Amino acid sequence: MKRQGRTAAEPATRRSGRAPEDAGTAGGMPMLQSLLGFNVRRAQVVLSRDFQKQVGQGKVRPVVFCILVLAEAQPGIAQVDLTRKLALDKASVVALVDRIEGAGLVERRRSTLDRRRQGLFLTPLGLQRLKSLKDDVARHERSFQERYSAEELAILMGLLRRLYE
Amino acid sequence: MKRQGRTAAEPATRRSGRAPEDAGTAGGMPMLQSLLGFNVRRAQVVLSRDFQKQVGQGKVRPVVFCILVLAEAQPGIAQVDLTRKLALDKASVVALVDRIEGAGLVERRRSTLDRRRQGLFLTPLGLQRLKSLKDDVARHERSFQERYSAEELAILMGLLRRLYE
Repeated sequence: MKRQGRTAAEPATRRSGRAPEDAGTAGGMPMLQSLLGFNVRRAQVVLSRDFQKQVGQGKVRPVVFCILVLAEAQPGIAQVDLTRKLALDKASVVALVDRIEGAGLVERRRSTLDRRRQGLFLTPLGLQRLKSLKDDVARHERSFQERYSAEELAILMGLLRRLYE
Repeated sequence: MKRQGRTAAEPATRRSGRAPEDAGTAGGMPMLQSLLGFNVRRAQVVLSRDFQKQVGQGKVRPVVFCILVLAEAQPGIAQVDLTRKLALDKASVVALVDRIEGAGLVERRRSTLDRRRQGLFLTPLGLQRLKSLKDDVARHERSFQERYSAEELAILMGLLRRLYE
């Protein structure tokens, strides 16, 4: 019976209660943990659960936060730019902006110079809301970033960026 | 008007068509790109879209692949172990296993030694299917892993693991 695959974290009491057919190898995990996809997904799940807990009382999805940040930084940003910058499809952006507009956080307005173009603007409520969300996000991020040195963090961000840029 | 934030990838034709109110800063992106959550999510989206395209003709979710791998490595694995190893909740595992069992890839069987315990076993079809999925996953992984040196890859995996372990 192969034992070396077991992690130290696994309590002995559970081992002893096991039938032989599943008391054996933990062989699948090393294989999964050698996959980039597995590691990124697991990290994503942990981050996303914590975001849900720490940010906007669980009512704000990360992508909504991103849209608000971009609308603040670029008042009048076009939906097509959100699509590109956030790697979303057009239908998702339209649905998301509908919802955020419905909550009174942004408004769509036509450009005064180009009537064909419609841009996104934060409302005063949206600006106020974003301020408090930024505090939540900073706290959430800190709790993960503090696991790394500044150098490690820069390396991690750089290596991740190579996956999506 | 601030220009230095723009990426080279942005076509000049689009710039020139912009109204002043959104031709300005790209200030939101540096802020977002300084967040671990943003980088991990973007990487996850890219990996997951490619997985969808390359693995099992888009009909197999990554988590299903993980369950099959674990059921092969540990015949008779308990659902509670899947929950723990894959950081899923119990209801999700039950629903997933129901579906995979319905597709004839696994079966739940009681342990011969402990009748209270029920374990998961690959069927011959499941084993055959998994073999072909593993080839797909290897190809999918290779296309991302080849962006890194062996050392970089080990560093990236290690740093990611620190987020979820």
